[in-house]
Amino acid sequence: MNDEELNELLEELRRGACGSDEAVGRLRRMLYADLGYARVDHDRLARQGFAEAVYGPGKTPEQCAAIVDELLKNGSGPVLLPRAGPEQVRAALERSPGGEVTPPLGEPAALRTVVWRATPARTRRVLVVTAGTADLPVAAECRATLRAYGFEPALLADCGVAGLHRLLAGLDELAKADAVVVVAGMEGALASVVGGLTGAPVVAVPTSVGYGASLEGVTALLAMHASCAAGVTVVGIDNGFGAASAVVRMLA
Amino acid sequence: MNDEELNELLEELRRGACGSDEAVGRLRRMLYADLGYARVDHDRLARQGFAEAVYGPGKTPEQCAAIVDELLKNGSGPVLLPRAGPEQVRAALERSPGGEVTPPLGEPAALRTVVWRATPARTRRVLVVTAGTADLPVAAECRATLRAYGFEPALLADCGVAGLHRLLAGLDELAKADAVVVVAGMEGALASVVGGLTGAPVVAVPTSVGYGASLEGVTALLAMHASCAAGVTVVGIDNGFGAASAVVRMLA
Amino acid sequence: MNDEELNELLEELRRGACGSDEAVGRLRRMLYADLGYARVDHDRLARQGFAEAVYGPGKTPEQCAAIVDELLKNGSGPVLLPRAGPEQVRAALERSPGGEVTPPLGEPAALRTVVWRATPARTRRVLVVTAGTADLPVAAECRATLRAYGFEPALLADCGVAGLHRLLAGLDELAKADAVVVVAGMEGALASVVGGLTGAPVVAVPTSVGYGASLEGVTALLAMHASCAAGVTVVGIDNGFGAASAVVRMLA
Amino acid sequence: MNDEELNELLEELRRGACGSDEAVGRLRRMLYADLGYARVDHDRLARQGFAEAVYGPGKTPEQCAAIVDELLKNGSGPVLLPRAGPEQVRAALERSPGGEVTPPLGEPAALRTVVWRATPARTRRVLVVTAGTADLPVAAECRATLRAYGFEPALLADCGVAGLHRLLAGLDELAKADAVVVVAGMEGALASVVGGLTGAPVVAVPTSVGYGASLEGVTALLAMHASCAAGVTVVGIDNGFGAASAVVRMLA
Amino acid sequence: MNDEELNELLEELRRGACGSDEAVGRLRRMLYADLGYARVDHDRLARQGFAEAVYGPGKTPEQCAAIVDELLKNGSGPVLLPRAGPEQVRAALERSPGGEVTPPLGEPAALRTVVWRATPARTRRVLVVTAGTADLPVAAECRATLRAYGFEPALLADCGVAGLHRLLAGLDELAKADAVVVVAGMEGALASVVGGLTGAPVVAVPTSVGYGASLEGVTALLAMHASCAAGVTVVGIDNGFGAASAVVRMLA
Amino acid sequence: MNDEELNELLEELRRGACGSDEAVGRLRRMLYADLGYARVDHDRLARQGFAEAVYGPGKTPEQCAAIVDELLKNGSGPVLLPRAGPEQVRAALERSPGGEVTPPLGEPAALRTVVWRATPARTRRVLVVTAGTADLPVAAECRATLRAYGFEPALLADCGVAGLHRLLAGLDELAKADAVVVVAGMEGALASVVGGLTGAPVVAVPTSVGYGASLEGVTALLAMHASCAAGVTVVGIDNGFGAASAVVRMLA
Amino acid sequence: MNDEELNELLEELRRGACGSDEAVGRLRRMLYADLGYARVDHDRLARQGFAEAVYGPGKTPEQCAAIVDELLKNGSGPVLLPRAGPEQVRAALERSPGGEVTPPLGEPAALRTVVWRATPARTRRVLVVTAGTADLPVAAECRATLRAYGFEPALLADCGVAGLHRLLAGLDELAKADAVVVVAGMEGALASVVGGLTGAPVVAVPTSVGYGASLEGVTALLAMHASCAAGVTVVGIDNGFGAASAVVRMLA
Amino acid sequence: MNDEELNELLEELRRGACGSDEAVGRLRRMLYADLGYARVDHDRLARQGFAEAVYGPGKTPEQCAAIVDELLKNGSGPVLLPRAGPEQVRAALERSPGGEVTPPLGEPAALRTVVWRATPARTRRVLVVTAGTADLPVAAECRATLRAYGFEPALLADCGVAGLHRLLAGLDELAKADAVVVVAGMEGALASVVGGLTGAPVVAVPTSVGYGASLEGVTALLAMHASCAAGVTVVGIDNGFGAASAVVRMLA
Repeated sequence: MNDEELNELLEELRRGACGSDEAVGRLRRMLYADLGYARVDHDRLARQGFAEAVYGPGKTPEQCAAIVDELLKNGSGPVLLPRAGPEQVRAALERSPGGEVTPPLGEPAALRTVVWRATPARTRRVLVVTAGTADLPVAAECRATLRAYGFEPALLADCGVAGLHRLLAGLDELAKADAVVVVAGMEGALASVVGGLTGAPVVAVPTSVGYGASLEGVTALLAMHASCAAGVTVVGIDNGFGAASAVVRMLA
Repeated sequence: MNDEELNELLEELRRGACGSDEAVGRLRRMLYADLGYARVDHDRLARQGFAEAVYGPGKTPEQCAAIVDELLKNGSGPVLLPRAGPEQVRAALERSPGGEVTPPLGEPAALRTVVWRATPARTRRVLVVTAGTADLPVAAECRATLRAYGFEPALLADCGVAGLHRLLAGLDELAKADAVVVVAGMEGALASVVGGLTGAPVVAVPTSVGYGASLEGVTALLAMHASCAAGVTVVGIDNGFGAASAVVRMLA
Repeated sequence: MNDEELNELLEELRRGACGSDEAVGRLRRMLYADLGYARVDHDRLARQGFAEAVYGPGKTPEQCAAIVDELLKNGSGPVLLPRAGPEQVRAALERSPGGEVTPPLGEPAALRTVVWRATPARTRRVLVVTAGTADLPVAAECRATLRAYGFEPALLADCGVAGLHRLLAGLDELAKADAVVVVAGMEGALASVVGGLTGAPVVAVPTSVGYGASLEGVTALLAMHASCAAGVTVVGIDNGFGAASAVVRMLA
Repeated sequence: MNDEELNELLEELRRGACGSDEAVGRLRRMLYADLGYARVDHDRLARQGFAEAVYGPGKTPEQCAAIVDELLKNGSGPVLLPRAGPEQVRAALERSPGGEVTPPLGEPAALRTVVWRATPARTRRVLVVTAGTADLPVAAECRATLRAYGFEPALLADCGVAGLHRLLAGLDELAKADAVVVVAGMEGALASVVGGLTGAPVVAVPTSVGYGASLEGVTALLAMHASCAAGVTVVGIDNGFGAASAVVRMLA
Repeated sequence: MNDEELNELLEELRRGACGSDEAVGRLRRMLYADLGYARVDHDRLARQGFAEAVYGPGKTPEQCAAIVDELLKNGSGPVLLPRAGPEQVRAALERSPGGEVTPPLGEPAALRTVVWRATPARTRRVLVVTAGTADLPVAAECRATLRAYGFEPALLADCGVAGLHRLLAGLDELAKADAVVVVAGMEGALASVVGGLTGAPVVAVPTSVGYGASLEGVTALLAMHASCAAGVTVVGIDNGFGAASAVVRMLA
Repeated sequence: MNDEELNELLEELRRGACGSDEAVGRLRRMLYADLGYARVDHDRLARQGFAEAVYGPGKTPEQCAAIVDELLKNGSGPVLLPRAGPEQVRAALERSPGGEVTPPLGEPAALRTVVWRATPARTRRVLVVTAGTADLPVAAECRATLRAYGFEPALLADCGVAGLHRLLAGLDELAKADAVVVVAGMEGALASVVGGLTGAPVVAVPTSVGYGASLEGVTALLAMHASCAAGVTVVGIDNGFGAASAVVRMLA
Repeated sequence: MNDEELNELLEELRRGACGSDEAVGRLRRMLYADLGYARVDHDRLARQGFAEAVYGPGKTPEQCAAIVDELLKNGSGPVLLPRAGPEQVRAALERSPGGEVTPPLGEPAALRTVVWRATPARTRRVLVVTAGTADLPVAAECRATLRAYGFEPALLADCGVAGLHRLLAGLDELAKADAVVVVAGMEGALASVVGGLTGAPVVAVPTSVGYGASLEGVTALLAMHASCAAGVTVVGIDNGFGAASAVVRMLA
Repeated sequence: MNDEELNELLEELRRGACGSDEAVGRLRRMLYADLGYARVDHDRLARQGFAEAVYGPGKTPEQCAAIVDELLKNGSGPVLLPRAGPEQVRAALERSPGGEVTPPLGEPAALRTVVWRATPARTRRVLVVTAGTADLPVAAECRATLRAYGFEPALLADCGVAGLHRLLAGLDELAKADAVVVVAGMEGALASVVGGLTGAPVVAVPTSVGYGASLEGVTALLAMHASCAAGVTVVGIDNGFGAASAVVRMLA
């Protein structure tokens, strides 16, 4: 519920262009829309600076499509559908064409991020660094979310600490970044090393990639929290969307 | 190793004011000082924007005092000694008077934060919110660290979600904050609620406060990572210092 | 074994309408029926106020159908078959037609609850609140169980604490409820918030919904136990049936 | 903030007996009192049916005493100080005499519950059952809390399932109870057995009592959640206060 | 390597009926047969009272068949193939016909136990008690193993503690048993209750059956170890074979 | 409640030597004595073959002394007080002299086992094997319990598998044993090795002895349950009393 | 980047055979090749003695094939593709024929190791011992890796400690080994026993083989770390490749 | 039992210098000495290359002193008493003077390592690297053990990855080392970084140093096992003695 919308409504009410019943309905809808199975939070953009995302898992394709539609029709700002399966993507695009899909539909992937109505480009620089090739799908979710909010994140892939020079070759890009997202599974050591090389905000994303004793990402999550580099913050396992959202809070 | 120091040294070398042996020694010392039991990282301030902190646990009082002394004499910027026991505080202050102690020495506390050479005041606003009274020691460590870097953090204490109106009474302060630190034990729900009320960066600190099934803070840590509020980041259990460092990365 | 049945049997025995061998058999059956693979507890309704439920997992379709049949033929009160797979539903309905299926057979669902011989309607009000859309299947199991015992539970869906106003819009319904069931995955914070807003009994159901560090519901379960809201009780992960049973104990 | 207090204030305001500045202050105080380190929730009694309890751990004796004083002076209803250490008990009683201490000060105990201004007696029957003698301190906290709210809970001590006849001897008391609290450490099996013997609400409290593999109460907590008795609810480890609060929600 | 076999070999050697090379080979084979991928332990029967079992998981069908064949041809006593998948059962029976399959091949089951050359009947009484219907597959593995060693175990199915009278109806059988195996998932409370009712050895088998917080059987395992009934011993999760082997050690 | 006692009572009642009120009291006491804080289970010896033990932790010295006294005065068979602290031992011996203390009062020990009225000697052989010297206190509790029931257990101390020949030197004693208790911390491997060397029942006791990753005995407990030796059973961590009780069930 | 390559490049540069732009490109490539999704670490062989392995999981078949190709064309030394699925094996062999596949393509296996350009034979002896038949796939990965680096590892399969004589029969091979790899699931006791029998380096590989309480290999991993045999080191669960790499570090 | 001792005994026996009873006693003692509470493994040096160490925890001072004495009088090679408390050190030195104590008795320390009869110096180079100052006590135990076996380990202290240049300054020492021990708590990332910089054997020791989510060293242990650097092996938490023993196996 932003001020402009609110003023317009009150003005219409004042000059009789809308009755009080209609006004109550429109006011309520500025806050949220009750679809029965979901209360779509239209106020979130105003309150928080970014709209509610339609997290895919646990929703039917029809529910996904309807919530996306509601957010597009009665809200503003970017609309995101992260971790969507093929049927959810199809249903949402059919009802609301024009969403950008990551990875693109031709490439193999279990889950995709769809973005509608992306924000115009911003100038702050975000760098996404991954420890290995297998961390790239999480990085892709993170970068698609960042692009939805107008950032154009750079990528340094496969810079795991077992070959430090690969990261050191990217020191320039590190130095220019206004925020860095580190995506790493296994032991997650890359977060500590990057944290020690830059004073910019570092958001660490533990991934479920790994073997030996990586425990589906729990080891990396714990290790990142025990990091010897001060001021590194952490989001949940495989949560590329969450890391991007944290960067949006910092830079938007 | 900042540029100014480096230029000065090279200039002295150029005009013969210092010999090459002395230059090598001074150059090395700009990077780190090897005390045998510690390699004091003098370059960290330049590299990262904040100096190495002298974490207390596991060091003898003499080691604490010597590292603080080294950082004060051969480095610049704020010097911090977090989580120091009484003997560590005493030894460090004896060798390096003038440190500010939090909580002050008269008040009861197991561990304290000592700060020397704090940064001049900055204008960005930081808000620290705690869920309960028992979370205040962690908030104190966080605030002392923030003050070392020039911030003057506001405090909203005891705003746990079981009495939401206590937090809602602070909505104005929340709206003005450039960054928010949420300090909460138990189930850590405050982080999600605050995350849903502001678009500023939110750093959540799980604390070891609680009972029932709080598992020394592990429950709050996990819960904060599973938060339904997008873009909330998390630091380690009771890590008020780490949360403050994250804010310094964002706002300094 | 209720008093009426028992008196009738003794009366028949007294006037010779049944022999002592038959009486022993009937007496035993009032307690339980031994089907070899199951001892169907016919006494539970009298002892506990609600009959044994035929929990689906680990039973063959034939076993499910036979136990339901036994409970219908030789017992009284509602008969429930929760978490039944498609073959179990089919087998049970074929042998015992008339069961009400939730979700209805036309809708997609992995597991369903079937109810036969529901209790007539009661007047106490139960409110089921879910944190997200993905928690609805657990809420559906809970509500089907409540309906079996005569309650007509209201539903507030998708009231997660990241958008508090969605819950606050339901304060009236909360105020009228004689008992509240909170169904929430992720960090489970909704239980604490609801617990702080009502003095009615609150039963929290952690769900396996979530990501990041939700650990298949363990995080929500622990968080709900560490809740800062006094007197919130908790049932097992995804146990909508158990939460409903707890409410039946309180209000029936 | 109850209606009576509010009406009185508005009436005073109307007839000029209080100015608007005073009115705002009194209104705010009806909601909560901000002591700096604590926001004492005066509205909780009206909102929830029971006042905020002053949980001892993590608070200084002075803080405990001041919060108790605030609740007594500016609030109504019972005031509780659970899990208070000897210095906290002494400080609170010195400032606010007349609190009833459990266990009484003469008996050995690490932590005590203090109650001021208990509710007049109620008639609903509550039964507290313990599995062993070592569970009695948790039962004592539970019973003291129940007495604060006017209940006079009966006690069946040491009824562990390894000697079932000890519990069966109490079947009459079980049958009369309107609610049952089961306090059990070790494997917590007593909760399932009691749950199968009564249709009344059963609140299970896992305790940290035990050895072998009891893991400080985690085993009992998990076991109680996996209970085969339908509708048993669980509170946190050693949380006698929480179990009593749950019963207050159900019966008060 | 039992004495009889050994004497026979030495006698043949003495009278020239076998050469020394052949003797060495036969001697070694009495200890174990090296198949390359397996060292079949022919000495185990003599050393331990029961032969090596051919645990199915992780072996190819061909490996299963060959090891069974080796044990039948060059060993004595019962031969068991527990937890065999359909291809393993088929391969083993094809090469070594006459094995008895549990459950029989007509019935649905994921894994089966096959027994060849069962021991003649023994007279000691073993009772297997299960908490629920879903625990029966584990009980079946246990009973098949017991029958392989000549026991004819009785079965009390579905005696979970939520309906104690079902177990109490079996007190006579409990009183007659020389050893009792308790098979229980969920919270595993049945082990404690049975342990309190008999002085015979009680072997508890936690199963992976359950929900809520049963954690794939870990909860039952821990709970059984924290049992308040003295002298109950425990085997691994779902390990019906192990429980039977323990009984064989006690009674054979 | 054994038959002899019961017959005597009924006979007295018949001939008028005792009134019915007295008879009811004596009957009830044959089952259990209610001391308020404990229900002393006098029937356990008859029901289970061994009397209730007075586990020390969590009981006051007075409670220990009174329960021991009650068991001695109104029960029969051995009376045990395991894991008793110095004040508990003193209080119990003062009220009930003649208990045998293990380790003897002169030797240093945190916890002791006291035994009154031990059973006369039995002939079955029990062997207790420990992996290391530090496991001896648990072995001592186990052996004191066995002696209470008439066994004279042999001891093989410090036979850890890193020096197999130390165990192999005891093969003769192993061969003669009717039951073996293996007491081992660290990785607990001794249980598997002993289990492979004997066909007698093997009860494994994991101990909290160890370092590296022994997790206070949890590692040994899990390892013993994953043992490759068939039919080894396990009791809880440090539960020497439980292992002895299991042997009593098997051999008494 | 080895010295020879570097000298050759500098020489070409000096005599004008290559321009400076080409030189920079070639220099950079000696360090690593940036394929966009992977930074292939060409320097690792020089730095570490063994080249980067192309771990299969999480990479597309095309990525696997391209990285293998890059390592073969622009690097030297053995190239390994461990844990490759069928499509990854096929794609890599199509682009880079001649790789040796373990297990051979005809045999059933979920994952395979492919090796190109193996090192010539070395003389140090490595022995791989497995506890059971089901541990053989991990042993196969280990041995294939060892062969890639020129070792010809011997194998002792199925020597679990429940039948010690099977291991003792291999004492001669144990005595000759310069390093031993112990591959064991279940309780992992074999590592301790082998560690006690040899002074050679022992690398223990816990496997995910087992049941009862083996927790997917976590139990064996913990047990091996709590081993009573001094100086046994451990690698991650199922990490045959890692164990081989450790041996290469020791003996190459 | 080494060959020389054995030959001497047989020779004495042959020429009548010792009787057969004495010979049996001496033979047995060459294998182990049975002190009742300990079986001192005199054969371990011959079998394994290093003698049994007298691990302090869980042994009385008298037991420590007697075992050290036994190893010195009837064995050969270095004798170690790691993790000894002050009374154990005192008792052992009183009975067996001349042991070298680490840290020396004047310095503050909870636990110390005592070494008697150290091996003459060896030439292979071992490097011990620690991540922080607080890891030094574990490094001290490791280095004392290495010195007992003749190595003179170099030390690089406080090289945590948050300040990589501190480690890179030690690249020369890293390059010369024949084996590297990495001692690191927190997230343990140093092991991966060192593993990527050298081809020598790397033994990682996780320590219990840390906070945030270091879980007493479990996080570092898991992280080191999930390391992205191939061939790094791991020993138990804080097990400096174990790491040194592993190096002795590799280099001695």
